[in-house]
Amino acid sequence: MLATVLHGPKDIRLDDVPDPVLRRPTDALLRVVAACVCGSDLWGYRGVRTSPEPRRMGHELVGVVEAIGVDVTTVRPGDFVIAPFALGDGTCAHCRNGFPTSCVNGVIWGGNDHDGLLVDGAQGELVRAPFADANLVATPTAPAQELVPSLLALADVMGTGHHAAVSARVGPGSTVVVVGDGAVGLCGVLAARRLGAERVVAMSRHPDRQAVALSFGATDIVPERGPEGVAAVLELLGGIGAGSVLECVGTRESMQQALAVTRPGGYLGYVGVPAGGPELPIGQMFGANLNVAGGVAPVRRYLPELLGDVMAGTIDPGRVFDLTLPLSDVAQAYAAMDGRRSIKPLLRP
Amino acid sequence: MLATVLHGPKDIRLDDVPDPVLRRPTDALLRVVAACVCGSDLWGYRGVRTSPEPRRMGHELVGVVEAIGVDVTTVRPGDFVIAPFALGDGTCAHCRNGFPTSCVNGVIWGGNDHDGLLVDGAQGELVRAPFADANLVATPTAPAQELVPSLLALADVMGTGHHAAVSARVGPGSTVVVVGDGAVGLCGVLAARRLGAERVVAMSRHPDRQAVALSFGATDIVPERGPEGVAAVLELLGGIGAGSVLECVGTRESMQQALAVTRPGGYLGYVGVPAGGPELPIGQMFGANLNVAGGVAPVRRYLPELLGDVMAGTIDPGRVFDLTLPLSDVAQAYAAMDGRRSIKPLLRP
Repeated sequence: MLATVLHGPKDIRLDDVPDPVLRRPTDALLRVVAACVCGSDLWGYRGVRTSPEPRRMGHELVGVVEAIGVDVTTVRPGDFVIAPFALGDGTCAHCRNGFPTSCVNGVIWGGNDHDGLLVDGAQGELVRAPFADANLVATPTAPAQELVPSLLALADVMGTGHHAAVSARVGPGSTVVVVGDGAVGLCGVLAARRLGAERVVAMSRHPDRQAVALSFGATDIVPERGPEGVAAVLELLGGIGAGSVLECVGTRESMQQALAVTRPGGYLGYVGVPAGGPELPIGQMFGANLNVAGGVAPVRRYLPELLGDVMAGTIDPGRVFDLTLPLSDVAQAYAAMDGRRSIKPLLRP
Repeated sequence: MLATVLHGPKDIRLDDVPDPVLRRPTDALLRVVAACVCGSDLWGYRGVRTSPEPRRMGHELVGVVEAIGVDVTTVRPGDFVIAPFALGDGTCAHCRNGFPTSCVNGVIWGGNDHDGLLVDGAQGELVRAPFADANLVATPTAPAQELVPSLLALADVMGTGHHAAVSARVGPGSTVVVVGDGAVGLCGVLAARRLGAERVVAMSRHPDRQAVALSFGATDIVPERGPEGVAAVLELLGGIGAGSVLECVGTRESMQQALAVTRPGGYLGYVGVPAGGPELPIGQMFGANLNVAGGVAPVRRYLPELLGDVMAGTIDPGRVFDLTLPLSDVAQAYAAMDGRRSIKPLLRP
């Protein structure tokens, strides 16, 4: 089969690799219907994080079940399923506690599991899905083609934006600031409105992303960054800041921006993968009772709830995909995202 | 009147200073009934934080109202009142939002207010209390003498321990670890049990403090520190950690200890004043969804609720005071606390 492999900085190839097979009774085999490129994939692509070996890529996918191991009971061949980006065994204390992202046997697509077996990357034709019952969620019926992008968004970005909003305690009437206008930040806007936020300030300086933010329910757009951005947000919010702030980037600058617009006693929900090791300024947090919550999103937990809304058509997070390419053009997809010519590219094997 | 003044490292004196007078229509004058020494007072005492000028000391007091300004309506001369350590104006957005600790006109005992007027330190005979209506809480009746220590604890340490527990989302059935066995940590144990925690692990290596922790409802004591302390706690808690951890010290070591025993997805409530600028390791937090909440405690908000329990005798946070001295022996009180011969000394003017 064909699968995306990162051979080195800017060197993305579609390689012919062995077809995956069922290895354990809890495995399922999936034929990928759609995958996509994540902002975090760009770290390896840009050489910020290097890998000694060529590496399978992609951790977001929807697909159709081709085969199941003998112990799998919740999905059947032919089912259309959403696969969360982090895979837990479903039985350890952390999985039972709702955090499969901390599973003692956890694995991410494209990585090796606890026994060293490869788990295929999502940007390929087929994948072996470990712990199928614990992770895969089937749609109630075969979805219409136009729903595929929104279903794919549930594999990561929508669940992650939702985690930021939940962590920031967004609820009915909330005032929210969203830092970051990538797919996760935009989904954060959508999640905040879905949870009842009254006012959502999206910090974005790109017209295409601003348009998506507005379509997701942003009530205000602040294009400025840095101290000017903070000043503009505070001006909008009576000089006080927001009770809920979503940090969806992961840099020191974006975290500082987020902290600076959080009102005393407010909640900062962060899901931006910390890039380059920023540390949190506890003195600033202490003085103003700034609460920092979040982390790597346990999207599996949120899937049933969000899936219902996608199937009902009440949310359409798939709008973050502004470029669709065949899997054969995967290198072009990376280049487009790297060059900010695309918010998030969708790949069709 | 006599008031405690820090002249330099280890140089605590009881000086004769001008009697305070009403300066504003919202002021009250209080005769101090009891005050005490706080761990944070030791920073100046030890020379960790230096001040160019001699400085009035103490920020915890209970007292009797001697006089009130013409605009004061909620307390009257003769009332026994508790004064929270941080004073807000009661009207700004942050005060109305429940965080007088972030009041735009806020002041702390022993500091200067927004107009530069001195606000007396609590370790003295008399104080001018600004914004009396917003801050002072009168007991429903004149309290019995034996209740005075517990009422004094509400001015800071009990409200602060409670803030740690609330920030760590302690509730019925919670498993809690408390890092720090100073007065705040001990009150954190009491607060956690009061909020319904089922298991409370107190990290303490001092027998006198262990005894107070047990009397406050700790179910387990871990005397080890550092990696051994973490291992011992994890051993007690099934290798998983606690869903609620209270950090009541403020050093980098104590914060690391607290983070290391927080289960994935758990809440770390911190109230230890950050000493020496430790920063929070966001990478570790991100991976395990460790939520860090808390800060300088808005004790005024918690006062009515906790006062009811003290008056009813259902909590007795005054047990943290294991040494009572006349104000004239204030230097001895500092030395005892500095030398860890006392958990927290109470001063009687």
